[in-house]
Amino acid sequence: MRGVRQSIAQKIGLPPGTPIYTGERPDGPARVRMFQYGVDHFEEWQDVPVEEIALAAKNRSYKWVDVDGIHDVALVQRLCECFHVHPLTIEDVVHVGMRPKAEEYDDYFFVVIEMLNLSEDGQGEVIPKFKAEQISVIFGDRFVLTFQERPGDVWDPVRKRLRGDSVTQRLRRLGPDYLAYALLDAIVDHYFVVLDTIGEEVEAIEEIALDDLGEDTVTRIHDLKRQLLMMRKTVWPLREVSGVLQRTECTVVAPSTGPYLRDLHDHVVQAIETTELYRESAVALLELYLAGTSNRLNQVMKVLTVLTAVFIPITFVAGVYGMNFEYMPELRWKYGYFFTLGLMGTMSIGMLSYFRRQGWI
Amino acid sequence: MRGVRQSIAQKIGLPPGTPIYTGERPDGPARVRMFQYGVDHFEEWQDVPVEEIALAAKNRSYKWVDVDGIHDVALVQRLCECFHVHPLTIEDVVHVGMRPKAEEYDDYFFVVIEMLNLSEDGQGEVIPKFKAEQISVIFGDRFVLTFQERPGDVWDPVRKRLRGDSVTQRLRRLGPDYLAYALLDAIVDHYFVVLDTIGEEVEAIEEIALDDLGEDTVTRIHDLKRQLLMMRKTVWPLREVSGVLQRTECTVVAPSTGPYLRDLHDHVVQAIETTELYRESAVALLELYLAGTSNRLNQVMKVLTVLTAVFIPITFVAGVYGMNFEYMPELRWKYGYFFTLGLMGTMSIGMLSYFRRQGWI
Amino acid sequence: MRGVRQSIAQKIGLPPGTPIYTGERPDGPARVRMFQYGVDHFEEWQDVPVEEIALAAKNRSYKWVDVDGIHDVALVQRLCECFHVHPLTIEDVVHVGMRPKAEEYDDYFFVVIEMLNLSEDGQGEVIPKFKAEQISVIFGDRFVLTFQERPGDVWDPVRKRLRGDSVTQRLRRLGPDYLAYALLDAIVDHYFVVLDTIGEEVEAIEEIALDDLGEDTVTRIHDLKRQLLMMRKTVWPLREVSGVLQRTECTVVAPSTGPYLRDLHDHVVQAIETTELYRESAVALLELYLAGTSNRLNQVMKVLTVLTAVFIPITFVAGVYGMNFEYMPELRWKYGYFFTLGLMGTMSIGMLSYFRRQGWI
Amino acid sequence: MRGVRQSIAQKIGLPPGTPIYTGERPDGPARVRMFQYGVDHFEEWQDVPVEEIALAAKNRSYKWVDVDGIHDVALVQRLCECFHVHPLTIEDVVHVGMRPKAEEYDDYFFVVIEMLNLSEDGQGEVIPKFKAEQISVIFGDRFVLTFQERPGDVWDPVRKRLRGDSVTQRLRRLGPDYLAYALLDAIVDHYFVVLDTIGEEVEAIEEIALDDLGEDTVTRIHDLKRQLLMMRKTVWPLREVSGVLQRTECTVVAPSTGPYLRDLHDHVVQAIETTELYRESAVALLELYLAGTSNRLNQVMKVLTVLTAVFIPITFVAGVYGMNFEYMPELRWKYGYFFTLGLMGTMSIGMLSYFRRQGWI
Amino acid sequence: MRGVRQSIAQKIGLPPGTPIYTGERPDGPARVRMFQYGVDHFEEWQDVPVEEIALAAKNRSYKWVDVDGIHDVALVQRLCECFHVHPLTIEDVVHVGMRPKAEEYDDYFFVVIEMLNLSEDGQGEVIPKFKAEQISVIFGDRFVLTFQERPGDVWDPVRKRLRGDSVTQRLRRLGPDYLAYALLDAIVDHYFVVLDTIGEEVEAIEEIALDDLGEDTVTRIHDLKRQLLMMRKTVWPLREVSGVLQRTECTVVAPSTGPYLRDLHDHVVQAIETTELYRESAVALLELYLAGTSNRLNQVMKVLTVLTAVFIPITFVAGVYGMNFEYMPELRWKYGYFFTLGLMGTMSIGMLSYFRRQGWI
Repeated sequence: MRGVRQSIAQKIGLPPGTPIYTGERPDGPARVRMFQYGVDHFEEWQDVPVEEIALAAKNRSYKWVDVDGIHDVALVQRLCECFHVHPLTIEDVVHVGMRPKAEEYDDYFFVVIEMLNLSEDGQGEVIPKFKAEQISVIFGDRFVLTFQERPGDVWDPVRKRLRGDSVTQRLRRLGPDYLAYALLDAIVDHYFVVLDTIGEEVEAIEEIALDDLGEDTVTRIHDLKRQLLMMRKTVWPLREVSGVLQRTECTVVAPSTGPYLRDLHDHVVQAIETTELYRESAVALLELYLAGTSNRLNQVMKVLTVLTAVFIPITFVAGVYGMNFEYMPELRWKYGYFFTLGLMGTMSIGMLSYFRRQGWI
Repeated sequence: MRGVRQSIAQKIGLPPGTPIYTGERPDGPARVRMFQYGVDHFEEWQDVPVEEIALAAKNRSYKWVDVDGIHDVALVQRLCECFHVHPLTIEDVVHVGMRPKAEEYDDYFFVVIEMLNLSEDGQGEVIPKFKAEQISVIFGDRFVLTFQERPGDVWDPVRKRLRGDSVTQRLRRLGPDYLAYALLDAIVDHYFVVLDTIGEEVEAIEEIALDDLGEDTVTRIHDLKRQLLMMRKTVWPLREVSGVLQRTECTVVAPSTGPYLRDLHDHVVQAIETTELYRESAVALLELYLAGTSNRLNQVMKVLTVLTAVFIPITFVAGVYGMNFEYMPELRWKYGYFFTLGLMGTMSIGMLSYFRRQGWI
Repeated sequence: MRGVRQSIAQKIGLPPGTPIYTGERPDGPARVRMFQYGVDHFEEWQDVPVEEIALAAKNRSYKWVDVDGIHDVALVQRLCECFHVHPLTIEDVVHVGMRPKAEEYDDYFFVVIEMLNLSEDGQGEVIPKFKAEQISVIFGDRFVLTFQERPGDVWDPVRKRLRGDSVTQRLRRLGPDYLAYALLDAIVDHYFVVLDTIGEEVEAIEEIALDDLGEDTVTRIHDLKRQLLMMRKTVWPLREVSGVLQRTECTVVAPSTGPYLRDLHDHVVQAIETTELYRESAVALLELYLAGTSNRLNQVMKVLTVLTAVFIPITFVAGVYGMNFEYMPELRWKYGYFFTLGLMGTMSIGMLSYFRRQGWI
Repeated sequence: MRGVRQSIAQKIGLPPGTPIYTGERPDGPARVRMFQYGVDHFEEWQDVPVEEIALAAKNRSYKWVDVDGIHDVALVQRLCECFHVHPLTIEDVVHVGMRPKAEEYDDYFFVVIEMLNLSEDGQGEVIPKFKAEQISVIFGDRFVLTFQERPGDVWDPVRKRLRGDSVTQRLRRLGPDYLAYALLDAIVDHYFVVLDTIGEEVEAIEEIALDDLGEDTVTRIHDLKRQLLMMRKTVWPLREVSGVLQRTECTVVAPSTGPYLRDLHDHVVQAIETTELYRESAVALLELYLAGTSNRLNQVMKVLTVLTAVFIPITFVAGVYGMNFEYMPELRWKYGYFFTLGLMGTMSIGMLSYFRRQGWI
Repeated sequence: MRGVRQSIAQKIGLPPGTPIYTGERPDGPARVRMFQYGVDHFEEWQDVPVEEIALAAKNRSYKWVDVDGIHDVALVQRLCECFHVHPLTIEDVVHVGMRPKAEEYDDYFFVVIEMLNLSEDGQGEVIPKFKAEQISVIFGDRFVLTFQERPGDVWDPVRKRLRGDSVTQRLRRLGPDYLAYALLDAIVDHYFVVLDTIGEEVEAIEEIALDDLGEDTVTRIHDLKRQLLMMRKTVWPLREVSGVLQRTECTVVAPSTGPYLRDLHDHVVQAIETTELYRESAVALLELYLAGTSNRLNQVMKVLTVLTAVFIPITFVAGVYGMNFEYMPELRWKYGYFFTLGLMGTMSIGMLSYFRRQGWI
């Protein structure tokens, strides 16, 4: 819940439109990559200076400027200004902890989305752990800008397809709106990798919930719920995002991209429904666990009660013949002892058969 | 939950519109059947080569091409191209694990739906088990294409009616939209067979929930809930599907099919409401079970408490007269022993009558 | 839940529009009554042959044809055809287990509703038991057709008013739409008789829920919930039904009937809200019951603990002086025994006063 | 729940529009008061005969006719007819147990609302008790009619303002729509008196819920819930009522009354939200109570377990040395007894320190 | 819940539009500050008399009149009249306990909002405590009026920016609508400070919920829930408020302020979603706690049962050989005692190994 907590409280008192980085400060400088492409050409630069991007912004190629490290607020600001991005948008780009949203401006679209990744250090542990990173995608007529906090993303396949042959790849033929769609789609598809791991955890808990009645199981179910709450916070607002993209009449989005956006919307809805399905499963798991606890308590109590019921009466009998009265006729009978032992045995067997008839043992 | 998990994660990194089969690979080749029919003619082919279908696609008869085995992606692709189906549709057809949906394209409708079947190997077991299989139905002006993963479906009655007399059968007189309706209706009607089995299970559990307080009952209720979650995932999106079909203004759906689609919609709504009714019943069952457990615990505790209360005081008395003090006047009384036994009896009876007055026994 | 289960599963594989009776087969033949009326005339026939009805269908009187016993599918079909009723409607009429609905056709309205009746054999039992019976009401410009499964309904007062004086009775002056309204209103008003009995049961359980902690109470609450689930299934869809009737612009419904339909809608909404109120009450009852169980368990445990706490220490003291060591100085003291008894008494009183201070006893 | 139960069931079989009083029959006759007022005049009559009202109905003064005792159905009917009120409205006026609603007729508005009052006999008891009484307000161009079951209402301040100076009082300047608003506002404002008492009860229970774990607390929470269910039934439909009044385009409501109706709507929404807030608080109270019960049970069990654990082993030791074997060397040791006592003490202390380390004591 | 309770009940019987202060009466007089500003000038006055404000109201500068202490109803009234504010608005300004709302009047907007502040006296305590204070913001073409109960607010940064350089500060360039936005934004941003503290409390409880099973934890969770209920009551209505401001077509709000209002709306939605996230977390915490209690009870019961099971049988054996029968052959065996001790040891070990196999210890 860190992400939520840090974000807005840091900015109190500052005028709106002031870009302030609100995330954790990573090591190393920000890195900028630029892809310049079209049906018949493709170029790729690493660590491009802003001046060159400002120049490139004026030619007619399609451009994808891909920034890792939004803590360099000045860089982000100068870059965005090359493409005439509104100050409020720039503020949102560097503001970690935003709610996913899509906003239509006059000549570009601004999409905030969360990228989920299984965290590598969590690999092998019990609970699926994932890292969320805020991604901003700005796309206009000729350009796509993407911003993220740290290096490492889920877009390598997209980059590979972009470098590929322009004939077989729609990515090169269609404009930045299709590229933006491809980037968002890659992020949404990756949600299913995380949901898969959660699904496996649901099944794993399902198998132990009735038997393994320790705090571990409770903690696992609780962690599962927390993951699903975070997941929900990530995917629910996307329904609105993909809705905005689908319904827009802005010329930035070509009509031919329509079916693809509908497809994106379908995936978002499926991610939401899967999340809700798992949430209901998590509720059912807790009920299963509690019913198991209840059962176990009943069993323990039965064992205790049967034990008590069998031994308390015969211990009483032993107590009686341990009394020191001078006149206790039974004590003098030759077979008193054996008779008493027999009586005790009979009482025990009687008790046990009574409980057996009751179905307790 | 397998279906959900496998589907999208496999496709990560591939460009959209690439048809990739995401289901389990069955034995044997895919099989294609074609029905060519009209008011005055009817023909049926088994294992038709694609070339013939491509030819047939051009004549004016109504055609139903019925494919078992979508793992043969190349076949599906060539077949669909005969009827000018969009690449995104083809991708969805072979993509197992889709959410049910209806999409309107320029000259055809594309419907994804899940067919439920009681699984034969589950017959006779405690929990209703059913298999879900994804069915794609594509229907246009002159043709219906249906795709499924494995042989075996719920459409034999439809086929029989199609082979029947064209005079009494609307199926032959009305076009592919009516056939598509008939196929969807057969699938939706089959949901009620599954819901029936679930309803029987609800009633069966209802009878044992208060008495049979073992883990079996919990497991059965939990399995019931899981089945209903799956059921819900299958039927909920259908409300939208039948809504899209009803509201369309596309010429592919003739106005005379309208009342039948309304009927389909009614059945879908009824399936949804029945599912929800059973879900609430399942919740009530768990509550019933837990109340039963609670009662049972109370009873066990009462037995334990009554036993303890009756024997502990008299055991104490026996303990007192088992003490070895030199001067204990009662020990010397002639009737001390009998008096003590009498005292013990009185105490027991007192305790028992106290508990009886309290309504414990 | 029988009704739900039997209905659709029986019809699998049959073409839509095939009228098949899906209910239980009663004894005796179907009975047809016809009322022919207007401002200035009124006639009533019993067991009219279909031919006469076909004739009557052509004259300009208002007609109410009232059929008991829809198992005679042929009769229903011929009757409906006299009034040009659509085959899908006929299929629905004989199809027991439908969801309540209202459908507007070109020249008539078709309403399916459930009639509830306290079941006579359930009278005097603990749980309010009611029978549900599906009623179909078809009304057009000049006629009302009503169909039900078994003889016996809640319409006798309507019939009486119909037979009455045309001057004071709107029923005779206004057309079939008003008669249909009166019939539906009689059914909806009767729901309140059932809801009354349920309300009495809620109050009855409320009084025993904290004290009468046996399985009986759980079963009663569970039965209450089931009744309310059934009730809900019956009344919820009616909101839509009365909405359709109110909003229609069809000429079959005269504008002057408008306020009456608004009244019907109000009653339906009130029935729904009362059902929901009782559902929430039933939830509260279970909580009350479980809190009672919890309390009782606490009490039982306190009794057990107090008993144990009082007797276990003094029994131990008795055990100590029952040891057979040769050198135990206390045993030889003259007043050792009495002193020990005193010690035991003090310990007991100490324990008891400790628990009293703790508020346990 | 009486109100709900009695209302409609009594009327079964009667034609709609028949005015039948469905409430309890109070002592004494119905009383009619009439206020005739305008900017420059004000008159007040007690127990006015209907004939005079019929006359007054024709002059151009504003009139408020205020009726206590709707059991005099004939009176209500004649009175309403003076102002051309529709028969269905008259039926609703005398029909106790209606759902609050607002209906627009051609030349008047009809509002049904429930007036809540703390019941005097419930004063000082634990649970806030309030009486609900159905109020009908009919207002047209020149008149306001109000009907209630029993004498006594919350309108004295309104009457006082009406009698006051016409210059400072909007009531006299503005028409009957403003008076109707003032009457409804007085009723809605009074809800907050009841909600206040409920709020006090919530706070009172909050303080004892964790400690006072008897049936009293459960009963109080349950009663609170019931009050809130009734409250909700009263206030929820009012949202619709005030909405209808706000949105109307009828000339009966002057545009200048608009802001006041918006104010009324705000109060209604606040009453609804406060009710919902208290309902959630009541749910939280029950959870608090149950968590308290759970804690208490754990404590009781710990006491029992610690006692058992401390005494059972040492009692066993005492039992061992109470055995009568001929050859038991320890018995002959001089310090055997003291050694054994020491052993017992050590065992007890060991147990106690173990439990202390476990955090049980 | 005080705020809710005091507000409306005090005003019963007063005519609407009568300004009555309903809050607590603070010490000291009300204080009025006025800021008069424009692109090229800025003036700030403390404790301005109303007459001067009345004069200033007529010049064309932008003005912000900031009032602390609405208990001086006369002052508020005269002040508002300078700016032609409607009587109903004045009534709402001094009416503490209003629901947040935005109302559009002919030439101004009226916004009621709650300002939250961590309470200083609650600092360092376990539960996040915050004070809510009702703020009224009225803004028109040339002026902003703000009213609050007590001195002290979250607006110092806004005041500082206002005093700053007009070139860099939008606040000075843009009109009162932007200032009003900045004031509301400052309040909404401050909610996140409170939500942060609540988030910390959620995490703190999460860590102890399974182990610290005392009443403290229950009380903390309950307090958390109450805080969140209050939070919800504060933030939910704001969605409507920011919606009204965004959608208005009134000229008071300049189109250039649009994106900022959209930003405000985003923050409100994020505050709502964070509140809901914490509410679900609080529910999960209680479940975690109860599962922990359940586990603990099971453990306690196991300890008790194991103890009982180990000692009761061997105590019985000791009891048997403590009996005083004359003929008990074992008592005379030389090794009887040691054999018996061995038997007891074997029984104990057998019991313990049985429970170990069962996984109890």
